[in-house]
Amino acid sequence: MKRRDFINKAGIGAISVGTALSIPGTAKAASKFKWKMVTAWPKNFPGLGTNANLLAKMINEMSGGRIKVKVYGAGELVPAFEVFDAVSGGTAEMGHSGAYYWKGKSEASQFFSAVPFGLTAQEMNAWLYYGGGWDLWKKLYKPFGIIPAATGNSGVQMAGWFNREINTLDDLKGLKMRIPGLGGEVLRRVGGTTVNMPGGELFTSLQSGALDATEWVGPYNDLAFGFYKVAKYYYYPGWHEPGSTIEALINEKAFNELPKDLQQIVLAACKAANIDMVSEYTARNNQALNTLVNKHKVKVLPLPDEVLKKLKQISDEVVKEMADKDPLHQEIYQSVSQFRSQVMKWSNISEQAFLRAREL
Amino acid sequence: MKRRDFINKAGIGAISVGTALSIPGTAKAASKFKWKMVTAWPKNFPGLGTNANLLAKMINEMSGGRIKVKVYGAGELVPAFEVFDAVSGGTAEMGHSGAYYWKGKSEASQFFSAVPFGLTAQEMNAWLYYGGGWDLWKKLYKPFGIIPAATGNSGVQMAGWFNREINTLDDLKGLKMRIPGLGGEVLRRVGGTTVNMPGGELFTSLQSGALDATEWVGPYNDLAFGFYKVAKYYYYPGWHEPGSTIEALINEKAFNELPKDLQQIVLAACKAANIDMVSEYTARNNQALNTLVNKHKVKVLPLPDEVLKKLKQISDEVVKEMADKDPLHQEIYQSVSQFRSQVMKWSNISEQAFLRAREL
Repeated sequence: MKRRDFINKAGIGAISVGTALSIPGTAKAASKFKWKMVTAWPKNFPGLGTNANLLAKMINEMSGGRIKVKVYGAGELVPAFEVFDAVSGGTAEMGHSGAYYWKGKSEASQFFSAVPFGLTAQEMNAWLYYGGGWDLWKKLYKPFGIIPAATGNSGVQMAGWFNREINTLDDLKGLKMRIPGLGGEVLRRVGGTTVNMPGGELFTSLQSGALDATEWVGPYNDLAFGFYKVAKYYYYPGWHEPGSTIEALINEKAFNELPKDLQQIVLAACKAANIDMVSEYTARNNQALNTLVNKHKVKVLPLPDEVLKKLKQISDEVVKEMADKDPLHQEIYQSVSQFRSQVMKWSNISEQAFLRAREL
Repeated sequence: MKRRDFINKAGIGAISVGTALSIPGTAKAASKFKWKMVTAWPKNFPGLGTNANLLAKMINEMSGGRIKVKVYGAGELVPAFEVFDAVSGGTAEMGHSGAYYWKGKSEASQFFSAVPFGLTAQEMNAWLYYGGGWDLWKKLYKPFGIIPAATGNSGVQMAGWFNREINTLDDLKGLKMRIPGLGGEVLRRVGGTTVNMPGGELFTSLQSGALDATEWVGPYNDLAFGFYKVAKYYYYPGWHEPGSTIEALINEKAFNELPKDLQQIVLAACKAANIDMVSEYTARNNQALNTLVNKHKVKVLPLPDEVLKKLKQISDEVVKEMADKDPLHQEIYQSVSQFRSQVMKWSNISEQAFLRAREL
């Protein structure tokens, strides 16, 4: 069913791309390009919305105003979950979102945002820029007339806020948790129940007991939501989102109409915004964690090894099953899996060994 | 002595900045800027020289040729260790190097490249972009008429190649090792002997026994140098260089002559090149490690905890002593130390906890 959707969309996408390519020479260096950027976040949302603002600002400034990108918060022009279609159809020239939102278009989109026990921010960028990942991403979105680019990363997230202590696998049984995507499927397979609800309802649901637990992002965003007032335990690490990539979506036709220098400006701005976001999260998570622990006396706990081990085993199964559904899924899966198995050996003796040594 | 040099330079720098500011309006959007970029690396040197090339290419393309940056390898226009003076004096408009090379100008420059047991790449960028680090760096180089910007990072390096097994602290006594900077000072304090020699002589010195050990970078660069042929053990982690920042130096007068859009292009290109380099190293180190271990049967070993613990204790002393020499050193030290102590808590439950969980 989803596969058929994907092929249908592919057909439509291919036509619009063809149209763009058939009118060369329309780009003029002096012309003004008024672009809309639709986003999947509330306007100015810390980390995510602010990154969209930064991306637009950089493009505007570097182009000396030849491109004017205007940012729209979720719902201002289109709802959050219509960002992809808006960019694909040309309602907006750019989008700012997370690729896992588009698993209804293709489940493989999840490889370009977050995979449980997948890649960290640094590893993800290595795969995208130097391991063939970006090319595969372009191939996946090509039928929709969209050029994707990484424009940010949250870094390793937290496992979430819990009102039940997790000491063994049994404690996950019957747990009512808000956890979307592949991570949610993993939780269901160990006996949990997943609940889908918008971010705005999480606080009261934790308070009323409608939810036992929720994942969100990390200290920086979670502190602002006030979860510490209604949940007892803050668990780590974020096994389900070890380095969530945030994407810029660019309408291919609009991109092809830009002169070469402005095309390079748009792509370089994404790359610069990419390092900016993970820097912001690293600095702000660090400050927010300090506030949560020292001011609000939050109990920060590690998930037990037994639990993590099982979650990893099931995660690998879930991802493999998803990959088996489609040849392009499989091609992406092979690429990222091979990269992960090698980069794990390197991260083990570099980042991990150093971080451990610094704590001795 | 070094302090006096620093003050003298400050005077000269201040004059040239004043001159630049006194001729406003000379920048024209249509004018061509022919810039030279001098580098501290052999032309096209993997990772470092290639990053300089990328940085120049991005500026050239994004500016539509309004700036033309030409890259010079070390020794082509000026020797490696004269890059800073060349940019300060205006012989070149840009430089590409590592800040620790300029400890003769100010020892505090080392805070902006590598500090033993300091920050990883991700943490360093968080400090620079969101923790006040970049502002302090600008303040340090301001008297020289130079604007610095991070343009790359090697990630965590390796501890080095050894022909002696390191099982206890005693094994470091009398060890003849090539290890420059603060790391070298630490080794001397545990009884080692440090030898300074150019990269080109390391191979034969290890072979002849003139050296017992050398640090270099990591698998990607080390494989190319062929150290595996003349050294028995490859130790990790790179406690002395956990995330070495590579810098772009920009002559302030030349920068001020650019129109605003081109200024933004130069700075954004540095930021984009910054994420590119650590991605390249992460991907290539990973592949090279595989070759070293599986093809060349290199013995990759961890430094023992007892050794790391002592090295960390002495490193913290060495860095503190350096900071005590000068008020600006002290200001930078306070900023980075406070950032490190907080970010360690966050990295511990995010990156480190996740990398550990993935290995279970």
